[in-house]
Amino acid sequence: MSRLVVIGGVAAGMSAAAKAKRENPDLEVVAYEKTHFVSYGACGLPYFIAGEVPRVEDLVARTPEQFKKQGITALTRHEVVEVDYENRTLTVHALDEGRTFTDRFDYLVVATGARPVVPELSGVGLKGVFTLRIPEDGLAIREWIESARRAVIVGGGYVGLEMAEAFRARGLGVTVVEAEDRVMPMADPEVSDQLAEVLTKNGVEVVTGTRVTALLGEDRVTAVETTAGRIEADLVLISVGIRPNVDLAKSFGVALGPTGAIRVDEQLRTNLEGVFAAGDVAESRHLLTGEPYWLPLGDVANKHGRTAGTVIGGGRAAFKGVLGSTITKVFDRTVAMTGLTEAAAREKGLAVRSVAIRSRNRAHYMPGGHPFFVKLVYEAGSGRLLGAQIVGHGNDALRIDAVAALIHKGATVEDLRALDLAYAPPFSPVWDPLLVAANQAK
Amino acid sequence: MSRLVVIGGVAAGMSAAAKAKRENPDLEVVAYEKTHFVSYGACGLPYFIAGEVPRVEDLVARTPEQFKKQGITALTRHEVVEVDYENRTLTVHALDEGRTFTDRFDYLVVATGARPVVPELSGVGLKGVFTLRIPEDGLAIREWIESARRAVIVGGGYVGLEMAEAFRARGLGVTVVEAEDRVMPMADPEVSDQLAEVLTKNGVEVVTGTRVTALLGEDRVTAVETTAGRIEADLVLISVGIRPNVDLAKSFGVALGPTGAIRVDEQLRTNLEGVFAAGDVAESRHLLTGEPYWLPLGDVANKHGRTAGTVIGGGRAAFKGVLGSTITKVFDRTVAMTGLTEAAAREKGLAVRSVAIRSRNRAHYMPGGHPFFVKLVYEAGSGRLLGAQIVGHGNDALRIDAVAALIHKGATVEDLRALDLAYAPPFSPVWDPLLVAANQAK
Repeated sequence: MSRLVVIGGVAAGMSAAAKAKRENPDLEVVAYEKTHFVSYGACGLPYFIAGEVPRVEDLVARTPEQFKKQGITALTRHEVVEVDYENRTLTVHALDEGRTFTDRFDYLVVATGARPVVPELSGVGLKGVFTLRIPEDGLAIREWIESARRAVIVGGGYVGLEMAEAFRARGLGVTVVEAEDRVMPMADPEVSDQLAEVLTKNGVEVVTGTRVTALLGEDRVTAVETTAGRIEADLVLISVGIRPNVDLAKSFGVALGPTGAIRVDEQLRTNLEGVFAAGDVAESRHLLTGEPYWLPLGDVANKHGRTAGTVIGGGRAAFKGVLGSTITKVFDRTVAMTGLTEAAAREKGLAVRSVAIRSRNRAHYMPGGHPFFVKLVYEAGSGRLLGAQIVGHGNDALRIDAVAALIHKGATVEDLRALDLAYAPPFSPVWDPLLVAANQAK
Repeated sequence: MSRLVVIGGVAAGMSAAAKAKRENPDLEVVAYEKTHFVSYGACGLPYFIAGEVPRVEDLVARTPEQFKKQGITALTRHEVVEVDYENRTLTVHALDEGRTFTDRFDYLVVATGARPVVPELSGVGLKGVFTLRIPEDGLAIREWIESARRAVIVGGGYVGLEMAEAFRARGLGVTVVEAEDRVMPMADPEVSDQLAEVLTKNGVEVVTGTRVTALLGEDRVTAVETTAGRIEADLVLISVGIRPNVDLAKSFGVALGPTGAIRVDEQLRTNLEGVFAAGDVAESRHLLTGEPYWLPLGDVANKHGRTAGTVIGGGRAAFKGVLGSTITKVFDRTVAMTGLTEAAAREKGLAVRSVAIRSRNRAHYMPGGHPFFVKLVYEAGSGRLLGAQIVGHGNDALRIDAVAALIHKGATVEDLRALDLAYAPPFSPVWDPLLVAANQAK
């Protein structure tokens, strides 16, 4: 009987396990996960910390018991420490039992995810200094908040801004320190500027162009030393980025791609036969540039896992790639992006044009409307759509998906202009903001 | 100097006027509108009646005074009663002044809109019986509501259901009487069923498969006689559909299309040189079937007008057609559609498949989530997307636009499956409902 071993039982890993088993019920499937939880939605951790999600267990989509009913063995607190590819065996530490054992595999899915980057700073080991990645981090932060008053968030990207909102919701004073000259530096400046305004309006101090040089304190952190002075803090969240957990994979000969994540084909196969990689540890292809691209997000991980699982189970599937679509809630504002920013497109050497407009999300006469910003990035001459960025409110920013759909099909600004979008006064001005932008594009 | 006369100064007419003048500032532009208002958002009337929009004037995007500053003469209460095409003149009634005069034109835009269908029923002229089309209707209904308690809405389509909500908001008892066996018969039955449930839950009595045979009362309406019995009512709204106002156009030789609306090309030109038609009085082309299609909606009217105005002003523009995209608020639910329903696709002789799923609009663990229904209609074999119907909540139904974008580009279910949609827990489950549906499509 063929045996599939999954290393890392979160989004990609458990999707692969579940799909492979559904596809081929004869397959033996076992997943090893080193945290206390499998199949959890890590993206929900800020909402757990904010108190919107009551229990960390709520983030779990399916428990080991539920997987068991499906014929899948999912073992938490089990860390795979070595893989002997030649003999198709692996060494597993059962962390709570303190024992080590050997398992065998025919198929292997490496879904070891990613880990937060922790800069080498003095004081980084102080109590009250956190990163946020796994449920245990969320639990520790939520507990620490009880006795905390002032948080410094190092890094103003997605996690940093989501956590600024969460900490404010818990009544903490919050300062975001960002080394670049603006928050959300992966967006174009117009977006960053609006977010800085939203943060400030919601009581978050924003300090940009500033690097953290040390964390101060005896036992517990008490302050953050920066290039712009000292900031008091009894809670520090480091959110300066993540890196794929490739060490184990590298150790037995799995090849990485140029992004530093594991190189895979459209079936999520690595260079080693029978070995797949999926989720945050694996690359995707960017559909616009055709280049390898690392997009460590939960939805991508699920797609990776489903594709790998289908293939391992004997079915046909392909994961073609990504456009870099994201959406983020920052207080009452929503930021959504797809494709390339203007800066990224220029870096790729494309002849870039852009148009940015401010409109509304409802007909002018409807109460409860909100400003809606959209920027379109497109290729000069051809008009080919390259990207869009939206700053909206609530679900109105889901309009980004329409642009993603157009980009996916190689469409132009002209196509967008001609698009029959759904209109009614509670949902859109009579000219949808996307159309206003397309009409203004030259 | 060239002179453009616009007949009908609402969405299409004033868009055409404004765009033509911007494109060619030397153009003389005059618009005749027979109601008291130009450039108003008729789609907002239900929200005016509900009380959400305080004044009917709020629906006006631009007043005659504002148009004047742009060099456009917009005259309200002016009805064009005759057009002498050969001599390029027209006869205008100044309704408030009781005088008639003649004007001349080089270009003519027929934007006479549409009018409600009023069945020939006894009692249809009673006080308290209304249709809803123009601001004056809205004002009359809003005034009548003050002394009304029970409304019967004849016709359970878009306007009927929006008005059911509006009347409930004003505290009226409401019965919707629909001749077909379900409300919103332009949707597939799964959608109608969900809407009936929403209506009932919100205190609206839904009576389907029932025709109204007479309206009863002496001076004021007191009841509605139907094939299923008598229903008391002191307010009756007839919303059984609309028809294009083509009489004037026909009278001077403008040709109609198979839909009964005016036939136009992609530049909104009619069969008569120099004469354009735009808005609810004109046809569009359905981008999926390639056939003439009548979609009398405000956003389409604006696009028509803008296109005609550009062309008249000497610019280049084309209106390629529509997909039939719509979105409607029905209490706390949102219904959105694009492309063909399953029924419509079968009628066209297409080999149709469909998939319908129920999911959520947020990650399972996020509070405040709502059910999300989506049905995809696609072609057997090719997988070409033909249509989608969504029953969601608030702006989450804007996902319809992503499907519209795909259909616009001739995409398949496979394309949708591969789409990189934006995900974060407050906005979507990790598998976006559209992807769940696409994954289940065989």
